[in-house]
Amino acid sequence: MELNLNKHISGQFNVELEQIRNDVLKMGGLVEQQLTNALNAVTEADQELARHVLETDFQVNKMEVQIDEACTRIIAKRQPAASDLRLVLAIIKTITDLERIGDEAERIAKVALESFNKEQQEFLVSMDNMGRKALVMLHDVLDAFARMDVESAFKVHTADKVLDKEYEAITRQLMTYMMEDPRSIPKVMDVIWSVRSLERIGDRCQNISEYIIYFVKGKDVRHTSQSDIKDNVL
Amino acid sequence: MELNLNKHISGQFNVELEQIRNDVLKMGGLVEQQLTNALNAVTEADQELARHVLETDFQVNKMEVQIDEACTRIIAKRQPAASDLRLVLAIIKTITDLERIGDEAERIAKVALESFNKEQQEFLVSMDNMGRKALVMLHDVLDAFARMDVESAFKVHTADKVLDKEYEAITRQLMTYMMEDPRSIPKVMDVIWSVRSLERIGDRCQNISEYIIYFVKGKDVRHTSQSDIKDNVL
Repeated sequence: MELNLNKHISGQFNVELEQIRNDVLKMGGLVEQQLTNALNAVTEADQELARHVLETDFQVNKMEVQIDEACTRIIAKRQPAASDLRLVLAIIKTITDLERIGDEAERIAKVALESFNKEQQEFLVSMDNMGRKALVMLHDVLDAFARMDVESAFKVHTADKVLDKEYEAITRQLMTYMMEDPRSIPKVMDVIWSVRSLERIGDRCQNISEYIIYFVKGKDVRHTSQSDIKDNVL
Repeated sequence: MELNLNKHISGQFNVELEQIRNDVLKMGGLVEQQLTNALNAVTEADQELARHVLETDFQVNKMEVQIDEACTRIIAKRQPAASDLRLVLAIIKTITDLERIGDEAERIAKVALESFNKEQQEFLVSMDNMGRKALVMLHDVLDAFARMDVESAFKVHTADKVLDKEYEAITRQLMTYMMEDPRSIPKVMDVIWSVRSLERIGDRCQNISEYIIYFVKGKDVRHTSQSDIKDNVL
C-alpha cells in the first residue's frame, strides 16, 4: 500500500508520523529479539541468555510509553483525520500487543532457569517447534506492518489457526505425560504455561494483523470471521 | 473528580462524551454480569447459565466495536485536546480490557459444563472464593471509572496483589492434588485454566485502574511501582 505521506501540507507532520512508525518497528524488532532469545535460552538451557530476556523488558516498556505519548501528542497537535488518524490509533493498539508479547517471552525465558531430564527435553523440542512458528508469525506481522500490506497481514491472521491446533496437541501430550509420571507435574506445568504463552503470542499477532487491515481498509475486523474478511474486506 | 464537562463550548460535544461514558459503563455492567453468571454457573453446576454466558459474548464484542467507532468519530470531528483527549484514549483502552475480561468469563463458564466428584468440588469452592474477589475488583474499578475517582482506582491497583497470591496458592494446591490423583489431571487442568483466567481478570482491572489515573492525573503509570504512584502521582 502506498502510504502517500506526501499529501500532508505540513512536512513536519510527515516526519513525525514516519518517526513513530519507525519507533514501532524498532520496538517490534526488540520484542522479536526477546522471543528469539527466549526460545534459544530454553533449547540451549542458557540461563544467562534467559536473564538477558528478562532485563530487556524495561526497554520494551519504556518504548511503549514513549510511542504512546508521541501518538497522543500527534493527535492533539496535528488533529489527524481519516487514514492518518487510523494509523495513529492502530499504532496505539499495536504497541500494547507488542509489549504483552514481550511479557510472554519473559515467561518462556524463565523455563530455561529449570533443568529437565532427557524425556522431558522432548517436550522442549515440541515447544521450540511451536515457538518457531510463533516467531515467524511475529516476524511476518511486523513485516506486514512495515509495508502496510493487508494480504500479508491476512496470512498471519489465518496462520493463528495452525498455531492453535499445535497448542492443543502439545497440551494433550503434556497432560498424558503428567498422568504417566506425576512427579514431573510441577516441571511440566512450566512447559504448559510456556506453550500457552506461545498461543497467546499468536493471538496477539492476529490482533496486530487486524489493526493493519483496519488502517488500510478502514474496517474494524475484530470479531469478524476469516471468510468474511476475505470476501468483504480484502 | 469533577468532570467539568460544561466547559465545552459545544453542548453537543458534552452529550457525545457523556454518551460514550455511559456506553462504557453499560458494557462494563454486561461484563460484570457475565463474570457473575460464570461463577454461579460453576458453583451451581448450571449448564444453562453457562451457555448464557457464552451467548452474551456477541453483545460485548458488538459494544466494543461500537464504542471504539464512536471514540474515533469524536477525535476526528471534535479534535479534543488535554483531558478530553485523555478521556477518549482511556476509553479506547478500557473497552479492550473489558472485552477480554468477557472472554475470560467465557472460559470460566465452560468449567460448568464438566462434572466433578466431591473432592474436586473443593477446588471449585477455592476458585469461587478467588472469583468473588476478582468480581469485587471489577465492580470497584467500574465504580471508580464512573466517578473518575483515582483513590478508588488505586485501591483496585493494590488489590491485584492479593489476587495474585491467592492464584499462586490455589495453583499449588491443584498441582499437589494432580500428583496425588493423576487420573484427575484433565479435569483439574480445566480448573487451573479458570483460576488463571481469574488472575488475568485481576490484571485487566489493574490496567483499567491505570487508565483512570492517566485520565485524571495526566500521567501514564503503566510499568510504575505502586509506591511510586502513591508518592508521586496521587
